[in-house]
Amino acid sequence: MPHSESSSFADRLATAVSRTNSVTCVGLDPRLEQLPASIRQMADSGAPDAKAAAYSQFCREIIDVVKDRVPIVKPQAAFFEQLGPAGMISLGEVIRYAHQSGLMVITDAKRNDIGSTATAYAQAYLGVEDASPWGSDSLTVSPYLGRDSLEPFVDVCDQRAAGVFVLVKTSNPGGGLLQDRVTDEQTVYERVADLVSELNQDRIGASGYGPVGAVVGATYPEQLAQMRAAMPHSWILIPGFGAQGGSADDVLAGFDPKGSGAIVNNSRNLIFAYQREPFAEKYGESRWQDAVSDATDQMNQVLLQRFSR
Amino acid sequence: MPHSESSSFADRLATAVSRTNSVTCVGLDPRLEQLPASIRQMADSGAPDAKAAAYSQFCREIIDVVKDRVPIVKPQAAFFEQLGPAGMISLGEVIRYAHQSGLMVITDAKRNDIGSTATAYAQAYLGVEDASPWGSDSLTVSPYLGRDSLEPFVDVCDQRAAGVFVLVKTSNPGGGLLQDRVTDEQTVYERVADLVSELNQDRIGASGYGPVGAVVGATYPEQLAQMRAAMPHSWILIPGFGAQGGSADDVLAGFDPKGSGAIVNNSRNLIFAYQREPFAEKYGESRWQDAVSDATDQMNQVLLQRFSR
Repeated sequence: MPHSESSSFADRLATAVSRTNSVTCVGLDPRLEQLPASIRQMADSGAPDAKAAAYSQFCREIIDVVKDRVPIVKPQAAFFEQLGPAGMISLGEVIRYAHQSGLMVITDAKRNDIGSTATAYAQAYLGVEDASPWGSDSLTVSPYLGRDSLEPFVDVCDQRAAGVFVLVKTSNPGGGLLQDRVTDEQTVYERVADLVSELNQDRIGASGYGPVGAVVGATYPEQLAQMRAAMPHSWILIPGFGAQGGSADDVLAGFDPKGSGAIVNNSRNLIFAYQREPFAEKYGESRWQDAVSDATDQMNQVLLQRFSR
Repeated sequence: MPHSESSSFADRLATAVSRTNSVTCVGLDPRLEQLPASIRQMADSGAPDAKAAAYSQFCREIIDVVKDRVPIVKPQAAFFEQLGPAGMISLGEVIRYAHQSGLMVITDAKRNDIGSTATAYAQAYLGVEDASPWGSDSLTVSPYLGRDSLEPFVDVCDQRAAGVFVLVKTSNPGGGLLQDRVTDEQTVYERVADLVSELNQDRIGASGYGPVGAVVGATYPEQLAQMRAAMPHSWILIPGFGAQGGSADDVLAGFDPKGSGAIVNNSRNLIFAYQREPFAEKYGESRWQDAVSDATDQMNQVLLQRFSR
């Protein structure tokens, strides 16, 4: 279902969350060695085109399974880029297929640069329905270069009814090295959160949210609560749930009182659910799609129980 | 001249600087609207393939001009990505053509992520001679995610005799927002510089330099001197010369006493020299390649005068 671009990214996401009654974001990380054998064998020749075809097939099958279960998917650009141009073609196919299936898309590419170079990245990835080559609803971006590195992305969001998720507080163990440094009682990530709020100002849609979102890891529940308060009009993308150790209780603080305003990403624990219990025993590798379906339903359920939305 | 991968990135760069007697890095930023008319018209159809063909042609002609004048070129990934997969194919063509012409390559893509995702980016871009799809000698990377986001890149550098340039102190006006914040008398960029030095440790080659380089802008001469001292074994990529306001005197502090250890990037003032005086008057648009040649020679000359290498 191609959506109208007259509706803002933030409002479209709010609608999609309501419609699916889910805050789960399915991360599409097609790691070759973890693909089910039936798909991995498509890549047996080792040629980039063959691997790319396997990635497209894998992601299409996941999209078929999750399309009415979740609001949004998040392809990880790096795995597609690893295959070279053939992978980048596959990335575009996957994004278009997700849109055709009624899903929204975050391209997780963590791009960053300044001025017209940042604009070039934004134009490459942001804007659905042929507005951009890759046609994503939204993109993850890194803030190290400062405000003038984020403004060009936000400008393109304005033009194309798109969104960005700025890395604020990341879920990895080493994230604190720079992000947690304190100056005048304010951490670096708090300063980034202020910047996110500043950029979102005057851009708030009917949903109460604007186009400038934030990435805040599930692995830091206290900071997640603090960041929810600091960026009341920003969608928060929460990575680190599941495989990285974040629990449903950990992510609760990321949501607004209505149980909206955040989406929780899970990549390998959903898409490769067939490799872990109880799904491995229940479905085996041959029914890997059923494992995706079951694991996604379980994640939705676990999160729903916490809200009473 | 494809170079042997048995020699480290840092040592190859030292050799290339000596051979060409130049520390100039030519930035390949093919902005469509600035291309000479004779090349821009290749893109008249507006199709991504046609634009990509124009970018490839433009960059090849620049490479033909600068190949014996400078050690290294720096394609800016964003402009290629803006064209979609066709642009990414062009990026690969340009990198290969640069290598065939005896030039080294920094792909300026400012990638960043963690763990196996960072490894995927590194494998996508790093390693010449068919080791990677894009085949670059080196890549720019962003440090916001911390040490565990840089280590995977450095590991691939080890495996493929490649290098990275970590964003330390960038040349843009807004760079200071996060980079200049002070904790315990140390700025964020100083902390990143320490991290660069830590990662470079035990990797120093015959040239005295290691694979982990740094980006430090020409627009902050005092910090450049300080960063030279803080990272004595890191190649420094200095952007911001020319169009962004940095002068030859400003960049001097980035070099070691032998006039090595740094390269100075210049993009639009070289590749679009035909658009500015005195080159516009002297060559006009039709002889834009002569403008590139003349501007590159002048930049080499201006920098050489400062050293007496």
